[in-house]
Amino acid sequence: MSERFDRGHALLDSIHHGGGAALVDALSDIAPDLSRYIIEFGFGDVYSRPGLSLRDRQLATVAALTAMGTAQPQLVAHMEGALSVGITKEEIIEVVLQMALYGGFPAAMNAVAAARDAFAAWDVRSVQPEK
Amino acid sequence: MSERFDRGHALLDSIHHGGGAALVDALSDIAPDLSRYIIEFGFGDVYSRPGLSLRDRQLATVAALTAMGTAQPQLVAHMEGALSVGITKEEIIEVVLQMALYGGFPAAMNAVAAARDAFAAWDVRSVQPEK
Amino acid sequence: MSERFDRGHALLDSIHHGGGAALVDALSDIAPDLSRYIIEFGFGDVYSRPGLSLRDRQLATVAALTAMGTAQPQLVAHMEGALSVGITKEEIIEVVLQMALYGGFPAAMNAVAAARDAFAAWDVRSVQPEK
Amino acid sequence: MSERFDRGHALLDSIHHGGGAALVDALSDIAPDLSRYIIEFGFGDVYSRPGLSLRDRQLATVAALTAMGTAQPQLVAHMEGALSVGITKEEIIEVVLQMALYGGFPAAMNAVAAARDAFAAWDVRSVQPEK
Amino acid sequence: MSERFDRGHALLDSIHHGGGAALVDALSDIAPDLSRYIIEFGFGDVYSRPGLSLRDRQLATVAALTAMGTAQPQLVAHMEGALSVGITKEEIIEVVLQMALYGGFPAAMNAVAAARDAFAAWDVRSVQPEK
Amino acid sequence: MSERFDRGHALLDSIHHGGGAALVDALSDIAPDLSRYIIEFGFGDVYSRPGLSLRDRQLATVAALTAMGTAQPQLVAHMEGALSVGITKEEIIEVVLQMALYGGFPAAMNAVAAARDAFAAWDVRSVQPEK
Repeated sequence: MSERFDRGHALLDSIHHGGGAALVDALSDIAPDLSRYIIEFGFGDVYSRPGLSLRDRQLATVAALTAMGTAQPQLVAHMEGALSVGITKEEIIEVVLQMALYGGFPAAMNAVAAARDAFAAWDVRSVQPEK
Repeated sequence: MSERFDRGHALLDSIHHGGGAALVDALSDIAPDLSRYIIEFGFGDVYSRPGLSLRDRQLATVAALTAMGTAQPQLVAHMEGALSVGITKEEIIEVVLQMALYGGFPAAMNAVAAARDAFAAWDVRSVQPEK
Repeated sequence: MSERFDRGHALLDSIHHGGGAALVDALSDIAPDLSRYIIEFGFGDVYSRPGLSLRDRQLATVAALTAMGTAQPQLVAHMEGALSVGITKEEIIEVVLQMALYGGFPAAMNAVAAARDAFAAWDVRSVQPEK
Repeated sequence: MSERFDRGHALLDSIHHGGGAALVDALSDIAPDLSRYIIEFGFGDVYSRPGLSLRDRQLATVAALTAMGTAQPQLVAHMEGALSVGITKEEIIEVVLQMALYGGFPAAMNAVAAARDAFAAWDVRSVQPEK
Repeated sequence: MSERFDRGHALLDSIHHGGGAALVDALSDIAPDLSRYIIEFGFGDVYSRPGLSLRDRQLATVAALTAMGTAQPQLVAHMEGALSVGITKEEIIEVVLQMALYGGFPAAMNAVAAARDAFAAWDVRSVQPEK
Repeated sequence: MSERFDRGHALLDSIHHGGGAALVDALSDIAPDLSRYIIEFGFGDVYSRPGLSLRDRQLATVAALTAMGTAQPQLVAHMEGALSVGITKEEIIEVVLQMALYGGFPAAMNAVAAARDAFAAWDVRSVQPEK
């Protein structure tokens, strides 16, 4: 693959342990190019730009997906990514609370449900010995 | 007014010079309670919570309004607020670029137009002597 | 035209004085069938159903368009329609305030701007002698 | 808690039997302040305003959440709330049908699914002896 | 029923084998008029217009529902409808990939999940002998 | 620039005469990388894929932007692009009418306004001698 793919794949793996391969696997049956674009363009081009820290980027994404309210699975994944780059659970909830102002209270409530899933997955992984 | 109003009004003024009074004025003709709620609840309750820096909060709001695409005037105002709490123009553009991934390219293009307005207003104010 | 069209046109005229003809005129250049569908289906089929009062229907529409945030010209028109069926300006503002809970504060702020336009148009018409 | 909380909690309980406590419980693990804000601001400040009847408010909320299409659990809850303040099942369906005009037919179809859940929960509660 | 209903029902059946009756059945308990409107207006009036091929219409609908992100069950159904009028699986995935540009990557990822369901249902039906 | 940029730029120019340079110019002041990404990724990667005709792609984009309702300037531009690849004005209006079913009537009405702008711009260009 391209240099952009390699850079994106490495960044995705650094945020989500094994995330690059998992994303490729998840879409390989019917939409392999979608995973390639997410890795090449999303992570290789955009997320790897130097102008903003990964902490800022994950915060921005959690805020946007909470307010949009149409991307529940991706919100869970990015909340895990937020924890992975050092954002605390309390800070994620702060973002969610704030988004009630912009996306409304139902959006914030649904994001709390996403946070519950993300925090539980994170806690399970944190106590497991690394394979 | 209440302590919540005072706290929100002071915070709003610290982000936007004279912003508290301007918001009250703007809605005083037909919806005075909306400005009161934004100040009391939005700024007095939520933005003034200690769990997240103002820099993080403005970043999150710029991200969300960019991705939503339905709040152009508010996006301009919050981009000015972002500049006011120390976020650079370059960082605002980074957030906008990133939001192309979540809200799509038209949302990012429209946010660039908002940024152009916000940056111009900021530059004008920056060279004016304080009244 | 059909009975459904006649029923819808009459209902539209009863809400907006001359509204049926105005809607037909507005879209007659490139999308005449869209005005026909709005009149036949929107007003002739749906709004003329007996199960809900016109007051309830206009209230519901103002609420929905405020929360959606993507239909500013139609929101202005339906706020005028709301006034026309006896909803007061104060009640319209109450709906807008409430929608801050569901569509967020920017949606409510933009709906206040729509209300200002609708109220001004209404006031002008109210002092004009009927042609 | 504050007077605003008490007022909101009482109103929430009057609409949903035991709803205030249920909402606090549901979010107490990771986002207790979100339930507090919904009760204080949503119900204590906004829903308890005298300018609009509870019937009108529930009607407006059902309309908005149907059209938005991003708040299915909250739509079910507010449809139950609508039944609780005296709106009939037939009137709820009327609102849903009307929202096809503004949010599109898929939004209306999904709201029918929400109504089915809300009506079933309501019927179960209606035949149960009060605890 | 009306001529519009008959025309819509026949068209719906030609796209989805038995789809007309299935839609009527699905909503007959609490919202029978919604299925009637979808058939009369959606299929009888709009989809049966001669100005665009059914292939073009299904392509447009798959694109729109993917980008909107609020109509997952309807997206699955219309992807099956797209296959039924001769659009290939590969073409559906092309539309989904393209919509990442307008609705964002999460919308495209969720549409891939819808496509997986639609393709599986289609494959099952394709190997079953016609009843 | 890259091969992807060149391919995207050429494709954009073939759809919109001089469109590639215009897009670069429009964003060069504060967001040059956004125009680069639109050209490289949007046109160089996605639109230039062989799996769907340009006619299908423009049809899909017009449908999606109409239903979303948050991208009016981009909808005008893509309607001009649709005309440029051979879609007729009547077919564009057909797509808009159909989108009333999915995005609601206000979305369709606003898309008619976009079509009016796009058709007018197209007509002006069609009678001008090529520079």
